[in-house]
Amino acid sequence: MEFSEYFPVWDNMTPQQQQAVSASLVSRSAEKGTVLHNGGTDCTGLLLVKSGQLRAFILSREGREVTLYRLFDRDMCLLSASCILRSIQFDVTISAEKDTQLWIIPSDIYKQIMEQSASVANYTNEIMASRFSEVMWLMEQIMWNSMDKRVAAFLLEEASIEGTDRLPITHESIANHLGTHREVVTRMLRYLQNEGMVRLARGTVSLTDRAKLEKLRSESNY
Amino acid sequence: MEFSEYFPVWDNMTPQQQQAVSASLVSRSAEKGTVLHNGGTDCTGLLLVKSGQLRAFILSREGREVTLYRLFDRDMCLLSASCILRSIQFDVTISAEKDTQLWIIPSDIYKQIMEQSASVANYTNEIMASRFSEVMWLMEQIMWNSMDKRVAAFLLEEASIEGTDRLPITHESIANHLGTHREVVTRMLRYLQNEGMVRLARGTVSLTDRAKLEKLRSESNY
Repeated sequence: MEFSEYFPVWDNMTPQQQQAVSASLVSRSAEKGTVLHNGGTDCTGLLLVKSGQLRAFILSREGREVTLYRLFDRDMCLLSASCILRSIQFDVTISAEKDTQLWIIPSDIYKQIMEQSASVANYTNEIMASRFSEVMWLMEQIMWNSMDKRVAAFLLEEASIEGTDRLPITHESIANHLGTHREVVTRMLRYLQNEGMVRLARGTVSLTDRAKLEKLRSESNY
Repeated sequence: MEFSEYFPVWDNMTPQQQQAVSASLVSRSAEKGTVLHNGGTDCTGLLLVKSGQLRAFILSREGREVTLYRLFDRDMCLLSASCILRSIQFDVTISAEKDTQLWIIPSDIYKQIMEQSASVANYTNEIMASRFSEVMWLMEQIMWNSMDKRVAAFLLEEASIEGTDRLPITHESIANHLGTHREVVTRMLRYLQNEGMVRLARGTVSLTDRAKLEKLRSESNY
């Protein structure tokens, strides 16, 4: 598959713009765990996922993490090129959550084209709106949902992404996704196990009653 | 003051585009407390503040509110026209926090121009990036409260060194002390002002509630 098939506004660019992108594009493989972009110091470029899975998260001073969103096949990461938009005033870290194949479009090339092309600018706008929406969803989760619902939602999402009810995941890792402490997650998982919704074993969490988890996730807090 | 003086990319639009905006523009006054935009059901249009103060907030199903950001003179509100970007998947409410004079640009007119003009599209992008940054700031506050404590600590230390609660200091200078961006400090100081802890004037920051600042500084993150 060619880059042009992954980049939806390719045909709206001029031959010169297409040439500039093709000539500067970097194709890269990243092993699971690789940090591809590290906060505000880098201006890595735009990342376009061929295959695999990336994770965008924020870090506290104390090293706590919160997952903002995931990027899958054909998704483009804009915040790894935040230098192209001076109004972006926050830092995210991007890492490969699975072995990932991707393209990197250099920030300066993309910025030039975005300034010339309404089509590319509007496409960029849609991508930012989409990430903004994911963060707002997370904000609403954090603001109005208790931790049991957030853990249930996380487990259901993971099971959906992985296509299995037996998740090879540690309590520490779940805590990092949700921005909380391992102890909180352990307590919550034990509660869910007592309620028959999950079964815990070393290094795995198995979903044993999806319907009940889904009910918990969707219940009102009040 | 004319609309053209409030809209930074006015001169980059074609005469036809300028004409389309001028002909469709609505000038409006909103008394303090007026709800100008109500979640996902409306596509009110873009709001450009002449004078006054707007507040953007989200509402839980149970009616709890969280303020996302404020809009002051010359600020433009994009999320009141979220129908122009299909990727915006969340609802905000916009109300007048003070008596406010504003213009409303109809969504369909703006969308048309944005699709034609790279300049308008990129301006829209910057506005969205800016609101996205405010929401991320709020998220970090909510998750791990950090920069507010650092700014509070800095102001208290300066006041102690200078022997006065009226500090002749720029936001830029505070940013340089803390190793962050001026915009981050400006946003933080506005937050502290909203909370009644400081008063901002050109070139000065006055501490108006030391006890509250000291309490903020010493609060644990957890």
